[in-house]
Amino acid sequence: MRPSGRRSDEMRPVTLEPGAAKYAEGSCLSRFGETVVLCAATIEERVPGWLRNSGRGWVTAEYGMLPRSTHERTDREAARGKQSGRTQEIQRLIGRSLRAVTDLEGLGERQIRMDCDVLQADGGTRTAAVTGAWVALHQAVSKLVEGGALPALPITGHVAAVSCGIYAGQTVLDLDYAEDANADADANFVLTDTGGIVEIQGTAEGAPFSEAEFQRLLQLAKAGTTGLVELQKAAIGSK
Amino acid sequence: MRPSGRRSDEMRPVTLEPGAAKYAEGSCLSRFGETVVLCAATIEERVPGWLRNSGRGWVTAEYGMLPRSTHERTDREAARGKQSGRTQEIQRLIGRSLRAVTDLEGLGERQIRMDCDVLQADGGTRTAAVTGAWVALHQAVSKLVEGGALPALPITGHVAAVSCGIYAGQTVLDLDYAEDANADADANFVLTDTGGIVEIQGTAEGAPFSEAEFQRLLQLAKAGTTGLVELQKAAIGSK
Amino acid sequence: MRPSGRRSDEMRPVTLEPGAAKYAEGSCLSRFGETVVLCAATIEERVPGWLRNSGRGWVTAEYGMLPRSTHERTDREAARGKQSGRTQEIQRLIGRSLRAVTDLEGLGERQIRMDCDVLQADGGTRTAAVTGAWVALHQAVSKLVEGGALPALPITGHVAAVSCGIYAGQTVLDLDYAEDANADADANFVLTDTGGIVEIQGTAEGAPFSEAEFQRLLQLAKAGTTGLVELQKAAIGSK
Amino acid sequence: MRPSGRRSDEMRPVTLEPGAAKYAEGSCLSRFGETVVLCAATIEERVPGWLRNSGRGWVTAEYGMLPRSTHERTDREAARGKQSGRTQEIQRLIGRSLRAVTDLEGLGERQIRMDCDVLQADGGTRTAAVTGAWVALHQAVSKLVEGGALPALPITGHVAAVSCGIYAGQTVLDLDYAEDANADADANFVLTDTGGIVEIQGTAEGAPFSEAEFQRLLQLAKAGTTGLVELQKAAIGSK
Amino acid sequence: MRPSGRRSDEMRPVTLEPGAAKYAEGSCLSRFGETVVLCAATIEERVPGWLRNSGRGWVTAEYGMLPRSTHERTDREAARGKQSGRTQEIQRLIGRSLRAVTDLEGLGERQIRMDCDVLQADGGTRTAAVTGAWVALHQAVSKLVEGGALPALPITGHVAAVSCGIYAGQTVLDLDYAEDANADADANFVLTDTGGIVEIQGTAEGAPFSEAEFQRLLQLAKAGTTGLVELQKAAIGSK
Amino acid sequence: MRPSGRRSDEMRPVTLEPGAAKYAEGSCLSRFGETVVLCAATIEERVPGWLRNSGRGWVTAEYGMLPRSTHERTDREAARGKQSGRTQEIQRLIGRSLRAVTDLEGLGERQIRMDCDVLQADGGTRTAAVTGAWVALHQAVSKLVEGGALPALPITGHVAAVSCGIYAGQTVLDLDYAEDANADADANFVLTDTGGIVEIQGTAEGAPFSEAEFQRLLQLAKAGTTGLVELQKAAIGSK
Repeated sequence: MRPSGRRSDEMRPVTLEPGAAKYAEGSCLSRFGETVVLCAATIEERVPGWLRNSGRGWVTAEYGMLPRSTHERTDREAARGKQSGRTQEIQRLIGRSLRAVTDLEGLGERQIRMDCDVLQADGGTRTAAVTGAWVALHQAVSKLVEGGALPALPITGHVAAVSCGIYAGQTVLDLDYAEDANADADANFVLTDTGGIVEIQGTAEGAPFSEAEFQRLLQLAKAGTTGLVELQKAAIGSK
Repeated sequence: MRPSGRRSDEMRPVTLEPGAAKYAEGSCLSRFGETVVLCAATIEERVPGWLRNSGRGWVTAEYGMLPRSTHERTDREAARGKQSGRTQEIQRLIGRSLRAVTDLEGLGERQIRMDCDVLQADGGTRTAAVTGAWVALHQAVSKLVEGGALPALPITGHVAAVSCGIYAGQTVLDLDYAEDANADADANFVLTDTGGIVEIQGTAEGAPFSEAEFQRLLQLAKAGTTGLVELQKAAIGSK
Repeated sequence: MRPSGRRSDEMRPVTLEPGAAKYAEGSCLSRFGETVVLCAATIEERVPGWLRNSGRGWVTAEYGMLPRSTHERTDREAARGKQSGRTQEIQRLIGRSLRAVTDLEGLGERQIRMDCDVLQADGGTRTAAVTGAWVALHQAVSKLVEGGALPALPITGHVAAVSCGIYAGQTVLDLDYAEDANADADANFVLTDTGGIVEIQGTAEGAPFSEAEFQRLLQLAKAGTTGLVELQKAAIGSK
Repeated sequence: MRPSGRRSDEMRPVTLEPGAAKYAEGSCLSRFGETVVLCAATIEERVPGWLRNSGRGWVTAEYGMLPRSTHERTDREAARGKQSGRTQEIQRLIGRSLRAVTDLEGLGERQIRMDCDVLQADGGTRTAAVTGAWVALHQAVSKLVEGGALPALPITGHVAAVSCGIYAGQTVLDLDYAEDANADADANFVLTDTGGIVEIQGTAEGAPFSEAEFQRLLQLAKAGTTGLVELQKAAIGSK
Repeated sequence: MRPSGRRSDEMRPVTLEPGAAKYAEGSCLSRFGETVVLCAATIEERVPGWLRNSGRGWVTAEYGMLPRSTHERTDREAARGKQSGRTQEIQRLIGRSLRAVTDLEGLGERQIRMDCDVLQADGGTRTAAVTGAWVALHQAVSKLVEGGALPALPITGHVAAVSCGIYAGQTVLDLDYAEDANADADANFVLTDTGGIVEIQGTAEGAPFSEAEFQRLLQLAKAGTTGLVELQKAAIGSK
Repeated sequence: MRPSGRRSDEMRPVTLEPGAAKYAEGSCLSRFGETVVLCAATIEERVPGWLRNSGRGWVTAEYGMLPRSTHERTDREAARGKQSGRTQEIQRLIGRSLRAVTDLEGLGERQIRMDCDVLQADGGTRTAAVTGAWVALHQAVSKLVEGGALPALPITGHVAAVSCGIYAGQTVLDLDYAEDANADADANFVLTDTGGIVEIQGTAEGAPFSEAEFQRLLQLAKAGTTGLVELQKAAIGSK
């Protein structure tokens, strides 16, 4: 029995609200249950040094948590003077995930910088970030197309993410904080709309898990991201 | 004529929404027009070293801006590895303002840590922060009273803040970004409900301003904060 | 009764000694009683990036305290690896104050960098710094005029600063450390020779103060800075 | 065809040399082809603060690369003043992997700190580190048992790691640098001797990969780590 | 011919002014020609962790330069966020030099912290610092004896320092900046009043120098420090 | 009697193994007894800013220790976020030593960056580093000559280093850790093959030492480095 009463293959209510950041070129407020992440895309007309004169663009991401987004307060990284290993791991993951479905040549020599800031954290912040960031990215590059800066949308497909885990001996979809803090294993899946795998991060928190368990987690994730892609489609249609 | 069409003594629409941060002991979403600041109070049962065994408590504040809260993206301070002078100046201001209306002995040996995070920035973020932080502080210490940890509310009055400035030769109340970026002078006032002055920060951006101009700014501020205190009263009544 | 025996409107003995730093383009040793600040101006023939090709110059300031300038030793900021919020607040204040009386176009595309280092601290270091820095600035730009690099002095007036406060229930001028550590309120005023206000920073340390009290502080400051401007005139005449 | 001429399921020559660090409590020089990692275990008789008086121990890891371990020189992290996101990601991975096979209660209140330093880097440094670190860990805790500090070895099994990837359209085992720099996908597997999964990190560098491809990578990894466990057994027998 | 017209064995005019820092427990303003260093001693009644309960004390030093102490402005280390290698080298030298003539057991479990800040730099700042620091140290520990905290002065002798070098092919004593910037070799000697060697740092800036040259430098240094010790004796007698 | 049983003028066994770092342009594994330092030279085709368009090159060095190279574990500098004063002192020493025998004009506008990393530390790491670095430097610039980038070897002689000290009242050559930790004095000598002095760093750890003692240390060092130069010659012949 899950703390939330959900079935093992049941996601939390998810909403993706495009345009939530008034000044950003693209944005999305992504909610997975009580987890809330604001994704904001900035278009910069210059690329990192190693890409100059290459004709190619780049997509990068930064991630942060408001100190009191969490159940217990977390230290402010700006005050501590450095980003944690976890933060850096997550922002690298978001950047890679978005680049996997971006045509970097089609984007031209410009950079999209995606800020994913957690306003409220109840587990699954990185998967909510990836899923919402895709909507923000889509909105930003659509403006480039509408404004005539690009001939076509440099996006090759959807990318969405969800976590799965082993909780109380059972494989479950979309861990919330109560589950995550007590899970035996935790895996994040970043998948495309055509079932392609962009990223898998699976970790045994306690005892190792079996190959069979891992396969069940992957099947849960595929079902979960299929639903998320439908929500992304609705979000970009509605903006 | 102000860019927003407001009268010189007219504030932007202000709303104070208590309880906006689900996990914090006290919180308030403070909106001054398009400026949005989330204030979240954390109660810590330990004080800084220099207060141990003093029987007195402390209130401190931290301030941050989401990178894309601004019209143009601002660098993430956590990524740069340090907080700017402006950030430190503001968080010191918020802390002093709250302490001015807190009975630190009445609070007992505990610390309230106030996080003020700017979700959207259209001028006046520090004044929206102070005004909302008071509501979050009130909510947090009220819980201490309700839970029996404190016999009485250790709050001696309201504190609210507003900026005034000289824009296009005219003294105006509650500068928005369009005004702030072009103002000749800018002054932030932190005042109590009884007209007491907690903090004044006035700066000539270009030419110095006169004593008479300063007096007009102060009168505007008094009128402005009187309205803000009414909103605070409504907010703590409604929570 | 003030600890020093001074009248409420009496400043400490002030001396401004131009040329105290042998190698600097301009300098001044500023003494307010036992407070001693060495101000040294450096002329740099390049401006910050955002001013390049603008035809305008800039004035900026840095501030520091020798670790044992204070009654109790203060940690060395270079050893701690960062400047405190207080230091940054003060150096921003000094820079703004000097720019308020500098014709930045008349200065041409060059930067004056003002170092204000506290050799001995007995209260009022920031006001001693601003007051002495003006002399150092004047000396530096005079050399530019004398050397033919500038046709006219790009200085539009004097700027001087003094602190006032409420000590033992009384409004007093030019707080020393013994007063500052026990004051109910503390305000720093940066004023021009024509009575213009460049900067006001007023803070209630304990209970808020009233508007009437603030007005008295302002009048004390006007009288105090009038005397400081006379000393500045003597200093630039004598160099 | 692989650049090295290896078959798709063929690992590079691997050697695990225990005792390579003269002063460490446990150590292992781990070579995967031209990749060389020195793993050194230090036993500390104190645990992090959150474990004090818990009766439980901890295993943690740090990772670094000599600047010229790489084909092109890499900046020295100590000189840059911070560890990269990649470094932090890897040291967290090594720590989790070792803890997955350590009986932390059996270890008692002490900490094993594992330093993994890359002397030469030709791809697969993190997998060489995990595989060698297990040997160093075993050697260190064996000394605790031999010295009478522990009644039994607090190790519950072997853990070994290998990378697999898709190179030139083919799934291959144990990527070297020439392959890694051009792979379409890259996955690191940390597995136990009983086939349990401790960690999976799979990333599409370019296009997403399919579930079927992922399954083949997992099978390659299982075969690869089976061989590595044999080498670990030989290493601890020979020390 | 030396730029200053001095003979090869002639020091610059040196003055040692004890008590120059009003609030420090001991202090000395040390002038070697145009080089001016303020040395200030702070007594702390606690020692570094590794000396607790050892019955022994410690002497440590910090060193800094005012940014415009130099002919060209030097960056402020507090603003850059770290101390240079040169600064750290010098502060370690000063600390070792003072400890060489301090009876650390006789000092008891307390620490003397010596701040040496360069107000004006014309070469030889580290040697002026060591020479003046000895006077400040003597003044500080004398107060401990006078106050009854110590039965006897824990100082075993004098320590003084001077630089020598090879300039224009000639061995010369007490390099000033004009010589130092063009010297072929530069050596700093820290010697005691009984001719003991505490520290020698000799460096060929260009071509290596010969053993015979080094011997001449050492003889010059011995003569130079003999004079400095006389000045130290006068300084402690006069305070 | 020395702990190792060596005679007072007897060095530890020294080996210099060129080419030990596979990917570096020049390298040497330098062993002084149990002390092992890997020196790796990187050729960079750009110089620091202050040398651009000067026609001259530069040689610089970085130094580090593996955390468990030492008898007790040393904190990792990359994790602490800064290099110690000792590290900076040593890397400056190595750089100066190499530049003393390099014809910087003959090198052309390029930089040699020397990484010296201590794999095992039993005293004398800096002298092992200097001695081995010369071999790595020679190997790197020889490749430039062989490849036709330089017409002649820009090396003007050998440079080698050794430490000497006063241990148990006796002057001894090449201190190992057991001696170094208990020495009364410690001196590092960097000398050329023609007996020139490049650098001397002598420090009394406890009581000052006499001039006569220092002369004996210098004679020991001359004998020691003569042997080291022979080993360097053999190393560059054998590569």
